[in-house]
Amino acid sequence: MNAERGRTLETSIVSLDADRRTQRHDVVVTEEPLEIRLLAGGSKHTLAVTMRTPGNDFELAAGFALGEGIVRDRAEIEGIGYCLDSDVASEQRYNVVNVSLRRNTLPDLSRFERHFTVNSSCGVCGRAHLDSLHDLGVAPLDDGIAVPAATLYRLPGAMRSSQHIFERTGGLHAAALFDASGTRLATREDIGRHNALDKLVGWAVLEGRFPLSGCILVVSGRASYEILQKSAVARIPIVCSVSAPSGLAVELAREFGITLVGFLRGERANVYSVPERVTR
Amino acid sequence: MNAERGRTLETSIVSLDADRRTQRHDVVVTEEPLEIRLLAGGSKHTLAVTMRTPGNDFELAAGFALGEGIVRDRAEIEGIGYCLDSDVASEQRYNVVNVSLRRNTLPDLSRFERHFTVNSSCGVCGRAHLDSLHDLGVAPLDDGIAVPAATLYRLPGAMRSSQHIFERTGGLHAAALFDASGTRLATREDIGRHNALDKLVGWAVLEGRFPLSGCILVVSGRASYEILQKSAVARIPIVCSVSAPSGLAVELAREFGITLVGFLRGERANVYSVPERVTR
Repeated sequence: MNAERGRTLETSIVSLDADRRTQRHDVVVTEEPLEIRLLAGGSKHTLAVTMRTPGNDFELAAGFALGEGIVRDRAEIEGIGYCLDSDVASEQRYNVVNVSLRRNTLPDLSRFERHFTVNSSCGVCGRAHLDSLHDLGVAPLDDGIAVPAATLYRLPGAMRSSQHIFERTGGLHAAALFDASGTRLATREDIGRHNALDKLVGWAVLEGRFPLSGCILVVSGRASYEILQKSAVARIPIVCSVSAPSGLAVELAREFGITLVGFLRGERANVYSVPERVTR
Repeated sequence: MNAERGRTLETSIVSLDADRRTQRHDVVVTEEPLEIRLLAGGSKHTLAVTMRTPGNDFELAAGFALGEGIVRDRAEIEGIGYCLDSDVASEQRYNVVNVSLRRNTLPDLSRFERHFTVNSSCGVCGRAHLDSLHDLGVAPLDDGIAVPAATLYRLPGAMRSSQHIFERTGGLHAAALFDASGTRLATREDIGRHNALDKLVGWAVLEGRFPLSGCILVVSGRASYEILQKSAVARIPIVCSVSAPSGLAVELAREFGITLVGFLRGERANVYSVPERVTR
């Protein structure tokens, strides 16, 4: 395998076609871990390690930090860069991103600990997840955007034609942002569907386009709880998926006033919440 | 939305078809968090919280614990059950699973902490992930299974026809296990593709069918690093995806002697590693 650092790799494969076998070269998408570190007042903490497709790493870090409520806008970020610490080996240098915060102490990160001693009030349910979103200060959306169904029908095709890595590898999820007229603002791709959305939101944050009121999001995968959670934090009023939503995603969309469109294929779609924003 | 606890929920939607709008009912797949707790010698720790589709929860817990190297087989598990602690609210009771270990102390879980103080040798790369799999004691597979390409071509259809929840919701990933003759052993579905595989491996562990030598795995989604990691731990010699693999998945498959088949569609497929196991 060609170890060139990038979004894709060339590798040799055996191609099967009925009874035929051919040795040939194929292109696969790169998957590498990215460690996101937070820096504030001389302290450092690792916020997360995520498997991702390299590219737009600073956007991914910014979008992740925003989605998790660590920062609320670009003004709270002093800078983002690859880690240059001498203790980071050279082959790892592009897998560690530092997000420097404009504050003197690190925020409380205890809720990011997946492994913790069980305490008395422990236990989880979907309701608790929705409540924690309210606790983060995320309010229901009251966005006046209205979009004709005919505009929505065009969006998956517009996203697909902007997926440059997918064309070569067939292996990537995508998230794309459109304005109310259906004009595409940006597309991001990643092997992980959450990462594609984090990169897109991070792009908006770093471009000073945040919050994303008046925008339409299209995602290539299922509309799960986490996709809707990130959309609520980013203030996106219309979320479209070419596939199915989950029950908890529908519940979140209704509670936070997001228009959730599923199975957007051809000239058909299902609207699971706030259908008033989709006009004739 | 009907709050019936189960794998699917009924909800009212607006269905769009070109210019027509119809109010009707639709079925969506349930997504709820599951907390997996480890118990040993009177101590408890939360191992993970994962968003999942309810059903086969004990298998999910067993498969997760095995995939992460917490247990090596069923003999190390004393029992698995829903948490009956009085401090767990009744609506959360089916979202907390206790895995009781046959040992007197909890294993070292420090590597599950996603958020930790950065130390000098920190930093991540795909190579480090592969090395940590060796460190877990996972050896390369030396499995003599040989399967005709014609058998592989039949597997995605056989999996699809056993996906009962997908049929009703269109919203689920699946993982299915077959023997060398192409006979289906089990299928598991979940909104998360890793969970579907964890349930399948957990089924094998609890049925005493572990390790899974001589078996073929088919997954509905992409073949990412984590799918191959879990397959290596479960000793599955042939892994097939109807979609694309990642570069790191290909690297892992080659290093651990797993036959990785991608884009298995109709009578075509790409074999990325150990093609000798696929015969004419």
